[in-house]
Amino acid sequence: MDVFIEPIGKLINEFSKLPGVGKKTAQRYAYKIIGMTDAEAKAFADSIVNCKSKVRYCKVCGNFTENDVCDICKKRENSTICVVKEPKDVIAMEKLHEYKGVYHVLHGVISPMDGVGPNDIRIKELLSRVNDGEVKEVIMATNPDVEGEATAMYIAKLLKPLGINVTRLAHGIPIGSELEYTDEVTLSRALLERKQI
Amino acid sequence: MDVFIEPIGKLINEFSKLPGVGKKTAQRYAYKIIGMTDAEAKAFADSIVNCKSKVRYCKVCGNFTENDVCDICKKRENSTICVVKEPKDVIAMEKLHEYKGVYHVLHGVISPMDGVGPNDIRIKELLSRVNDGEVKEVIMATNPDVEGEATAMYIAKLLKPLGINVTRLAHGIPIGSELEYTDEVTLSRALLERKQI
Repeated sequence: MDVFIEPIGKLINEFSKLPGVGKKTAQRYAYKIIGMTDAEAKAFADSIVNCKSKVRYCKVCGNFTENDVCDICKKRENSTICVVKEPKDVIAMEKLHEYKGVYHVLHGVISPMDGVGPNDIRIKELLSRVNDGEVKEVIMATNPDVEGEATAMYIAKLLKPLGINVTRLAHGIPIGSELEYTDEVTLSRALLERKQI
Repeated sequence: MDVFIEPIGKLINEFSKLPGVGKKTAQRYAYKIIGMTDAEAKAFADSIVNCKSKVRYCKVCGNFTENDVCDICKKRENSTICVVKEPKDVIAMEKLHEYKGVYHVLHGVISPMDGVGPNDIRIKELLSRVNDGEVKEVIMATNPDVEGEATAMYIAKLLKPLGINVTRLAHGIPIGSELEYTDEVTLSRALLERKQI
C-alpha cells in the first residue's frame, strides 16, 4: 500500500472491509470518491453515519427500524407471525407485496457447530409474543438449510402445545440456497404452499 | 426501494453510485455498515471525507498529493518524465519499483469523438515543464488503445523539435486493454523495451 498516499490508502483499506471487495475494487471505489464533488462525498459519508445512528432493532420483532417499534408491527394484523433469520429476509418477503402479517427476526439460527444455542437467538421473545394470545399462525421462514430446518423444528415443538398453527414455507425454494437470493416467483409459491409441521 | 426504511434506502442509493455496484451489492454493503460498531462506521465515513478534502492534484505533475507538490516531484530526478492518462496509471508504474523518474498526468487523452481536444488535457503544462530545460526523455505511457496512441503521437510531434528523446512503452502490453490492469511482468518488460517514436 506504500504506493498510495495516506488518505487514499486509508480509504482503500476501509472499502476493503465490505463483503467481497478486494484491493483492486476498493481502489476503484476510492478513485470514484476522489472524482466526486465535495458535497457528493459528504452526502455519501453522512449517509453512512446517519444509517448507523438511526437504524435500530424493533423492540417487538427485531427488524430494522428508526423508532422503538417498526411500521410493520404498528400497522399490520398480528395474528400471523413470519419467523426469519435476519432482517434482510424480511426485505425478501416484503418484496412480494403478498404477506399481510407481522415478522419475528431471530437474528441467527440454532447451530451447535458455531456454539449458537436456542438461548442465543430471539426464541423466548417469540414465545412471549405468542403467549400474549392473539397469534393464530406462525410461519417458519428460516433458510432451507440444516440449521434453518433444525431451528424451524425446534420452534415448532415449542409452539404446538400452545395450540398454534405452525407452518413452514413450501418446498420450491432450492435446498442449500439462501432466502435472500430466491427469485420472487419461487418465494411467492413457497408462501402459498406453506404446510403444517 | 419502498421496502427499505429511509436511512437504509439512502445508504443503498449512495453505494449504488460506486462503479459496478448494483442494488443487491449495495444492499449487502449497507447491511455490513449496520453490523459495524458506531466507531467503525464513523471511521469509514471520516475516511471518505478526509480523502476527499485532503487529496489534491500536484501543481507540477497532476498526480494525487496532500501538498502543493507531490513527493515524487520533490524527490526524484526530473530528467525523465513518464506521461500517463490518469493518476491510477502512476500507481501501476510505481508498483514496479523500477522507474526512477517523474510523471506527468494528462487527466485524459485526445478523443475527438468525446469532444476532448489537445487543449482539454494537460499538454501545455507538459510543454512548459520540458521548456524549463532539464528534461532529456519523455516516456509516453498512455494506454495502448486508439486514443492513447493518437495522444502519444501528437505529443511526440510537439516534443521532437525541442530535441527531446520521446519514447513509448514497448509492445508487450496487450492492445485494447488498460494500463491499470496490465500484469507487472508485462508492464516491466514494456518499460525496459520502450522505443523511440
